[in-house]
Amino acid sequence: MNQLIEQLTKEQQSEVKRQMAIYSQGVQEIIPTEELEQKLATSILENRPLKIKLGLDPSAPDVHLGHTVVLNKMRQFQENGHLIQLIIGDFTGKIGDPTGKSVARKQLTDEEVKFNAKTYFEQFAKVIDMEKVELHYNSKWLSKLNFEDVIQLAGKITVARLLERDDFEERIAFKKPISLHEFFYPLMQGYDSVMLECDIELGGTDQHFNILMGRHFQEKFNKEKQVALLMPLLEGLDGVEKMSKSKKNYIGIDESPQEMYGKAMSIPDQLMIKYFELVTNFTPDQLKTLKQQIEIGELHPRDAKMLLGKTIVTMYHGEEAAEAAQQHFITVFQQRNLPTDIPEITWNGDTEILVTDLLVELQLLTSKSEARRMINNRGIKLNEIKVEDPALVVSVTDGLIVQVGKRKIVKILL
Amino acid sequence: MNQLIEQLTKEQQSEVKRQMAIYSQGVQEIIPTEELEQKLATSILENRPLKIKLGLDPSAPDVHLGHTVVLNKMRQFQENGHLIQLIIGDFTGKIGDPTGKSVARKQLTDEEVKFNAKTYFEQFAKVIDMEKVELHYNSKWLSKLNFEDVIQLAGKITVARLLERDDFEERIAFKKPISLHEFFYPLMQGYDSVMLECDIELGGTDQHFNILMGRHFQEKFNKEKQVALLMPLLEGLDGVEKMSKSKKNYIGIDESPQEMYGKAMSIPDQLMIKYFELVTNFTPDQLKTLKQQIEIGELHPRDAKMLLGKTIVTMYHGEEAAEAAQQHFITVFQQRNLPTDIPEITWNGDTEILVTDLLVELQLLTSKSEARRMINNRGIKLNEIKVEDPALVVSVTDGLIVQVGKRKIVKILL
Repeated sequence: MNQLIEQLTKEQQSEVKRQMAIYSQGVQEIIPTEELEQKLATSILENRPLKIKLGLDPSAPDVHLGHTVVLNKMRQFQENGHLIQLIIGDFTGKIGDPTGKSVARKQLTDEEVKFNAKTYFEQFAKVIDMEKVELHYNSKWLSKLNFEDVIQLAGKITVARLLERDDFEERIAFKKPISLHEFFYPLMQGYDSVMLECDIELGGTDQHFNILMGRHFQEKFNKEKQVALLMPLLEGLDGVEKMSKSKKNYIGIDESPQEMYGKAMSIPDQLMIKYFELVTNFTPDQLKTLKQQIEIGELHPRDAKMLLGKTIVTMYHGEEAAEAAQQHFITVFQQRNLPTDIPEITWNGDTEILVTDLLVELQLLTSKSEARRMINNRGIKLNEIKVEDPALVVSVTDGLIVQVGKRKIVKILL
Repeated sequence: MNQLIEQLTKEQQSEVKRQMAIYSQGVQEIIPTEELEQKLATSILENRPLKIKLGLDPSAPDVHLGHTVVLNKMRQFQENGHLIQLIIGDFTGKIGDPTGKSVARKQLTDEEVKFNAKTYFEQFAKVIDMEKVELHYNSKWLSKLNFEDVIQLAGKITVARLLERDDFEERIAFKKPISLHEFFYPLMQGYDSVMLECDIELGGTDQHFNILMGRHFQEKFNKEKQVALLMPLLEGLDGVEKMSKSKKNYIGIDESPQEMYGKAMSIPDQLMIKYFELVTNFTPDQLKTLKQQIEIGELHPRDAKMLLGKTIVTMYHGEEAAEAAQQHFITVFQQRNLPTDIPEITWNGDTEILVTDLLVELQLLTSKSEARRMINNRGIKLNEIKVEDPALVVSVTDGLIVQVGKRKIVKILL
């Protein structure tokens, strides 16, 4: 490795460092880090992109924020000129569960696989540039293996090695059955990496074992070994379990701005930074600033969470929709924390109005300049959210709560 | 089962019993006995033969007496009208050992497989009627399985069940590697039984696990389960290890009469009865008589062993060759126990001569009637072997020792 790095110019060396810093951000584990550096050096020297693999299970095409942890990492590689290899595990999907016990792994038709893949791609397009992606269906090579090929493949791994996988180990310990065919899923995943000569495979930490199978089989087939890049698992809205559709603790990236924003606001406080780190496009510098602001009390956790919600909705629906979703949330969800005896004012003015104009027209303040000053002093709240921008255009909705300082408060009726 | 037996006439019932007695002879284990009875009853009721499976490894076609333990049992089934299914495991043979570690399981070409199979059949023909045998090469169906089929098959068995096999269990315990492909050999053997709808599979006790795989997979494929009929393993000439070519403790059925006889004479005394039981065509009654004769001292163990040697050679080379082999053995091996000062007589008479005539012409006795009496009193020995039949025709060979009683002894020179 050192030899390779020495062949690089100083500029090239700092390019390796720059990329390493990006790819390491938020990562749980890189196995091994030195090989990733080496691959980056080779990539620069030979001016060829690295092949970054991501395997997809075609049975569950609803993409949620949990999936975007890996997708965001792929985007970083793509932005630096590397090649994304998406592999649809259609072979597995078409087999189903031979024991017939698992409803989850029911047999999929060709049409279902294609449809699910298309659904994935449409959603992925919101994070990565799908036009630059290399697409593969692993049935292309797996369906061609005959019994003899399978035996040759199986001859390259030991039973003990397979039993090291956490869930297998656990089931053996608790005398729960492991059907022999289950041993083949990691083998297939490893063989995919052999066929596509992947340089890096991305996945959640739950893919630790399976991704190392790629390294194992590439070595057995005399190929260069891929690097495993493992991302932390994102806990869902319950703050405990891994985000997943079945646990109903997820934010789907196809959900409406309002749903998305509302769900984001239910993320537990202690997970907020992790979400910023893993599912937004915040840079390391932005993250650092954010943490500092929260730490010194400059940014209230609730406001930070609203920023998170707005950032996420912006990523998938654009800024305007995000603003509207925030307004909606403020209107519908936050007013319930207010006193019950709020004076009510029936509003006959514009429903889209500058916040300064609104404050004056409601006679809460006497002038727009006073209103601006109060906003700059963070003394104005709409539905309990501090207004930070004096140029904000408010969507006036029925029940909107307007506060000036701690004492003046009204509710608008339309 | 009882219902089935009740449908049989008394004669049919006793036929089931008769066959059960034959098949049970010398057997280590029948799994389960009731099902064998049931299958025999069905066979009789429906007038159709049972299918008796024997799987063969095409890599080692030298048949020795160890193999004939099972072959003799097959012969009994064949003699009662059942159908022998010989399966050449050519699929396995053609694969070899994918890890490349085992020299024993080297890859065989089609020609080698065919040649080895032919070699088997020529040897088997000495025990069973090969013209009535159904021959199968398991590559016919196994080579057609694709990856999906293999996964479906693997889905029908658990890892824990496979790890129950003694040698696997032991290797796991001692942390010796088991290559995943090894799990497929029992699967294949089981699948063969599914394809051929075997009623009974024969094998040594070392095949216990593999033969039960047939039952397992037949059940999973909704077929009637085969019965496992397990024969004891025959210890080799060392009296300790299982007879096998690699241990050089075997008697090959293609060996010359002299070699065969000589090796038989080196069988340890304590194994003699087991050999009579497992590798000769002695009936249960004959066996019983033999045991009694030895027990009451009527038959000297050495003479019993000579009878064993002669019986074995007769089975594979005919009676005449067996007689000659015995004579040769007596001449070459036994005379060394005699005194060194034996009077020598040059013989000019017939080299094929009645024992009574020989004794008279040598002037050891005065009349043929006296000679007959001495033989009946067990007083005559040729090369230290008691002559039991006064009508014996002796092949006079150079160095033949003739004894009358304890005192008269001569050596013939030709």
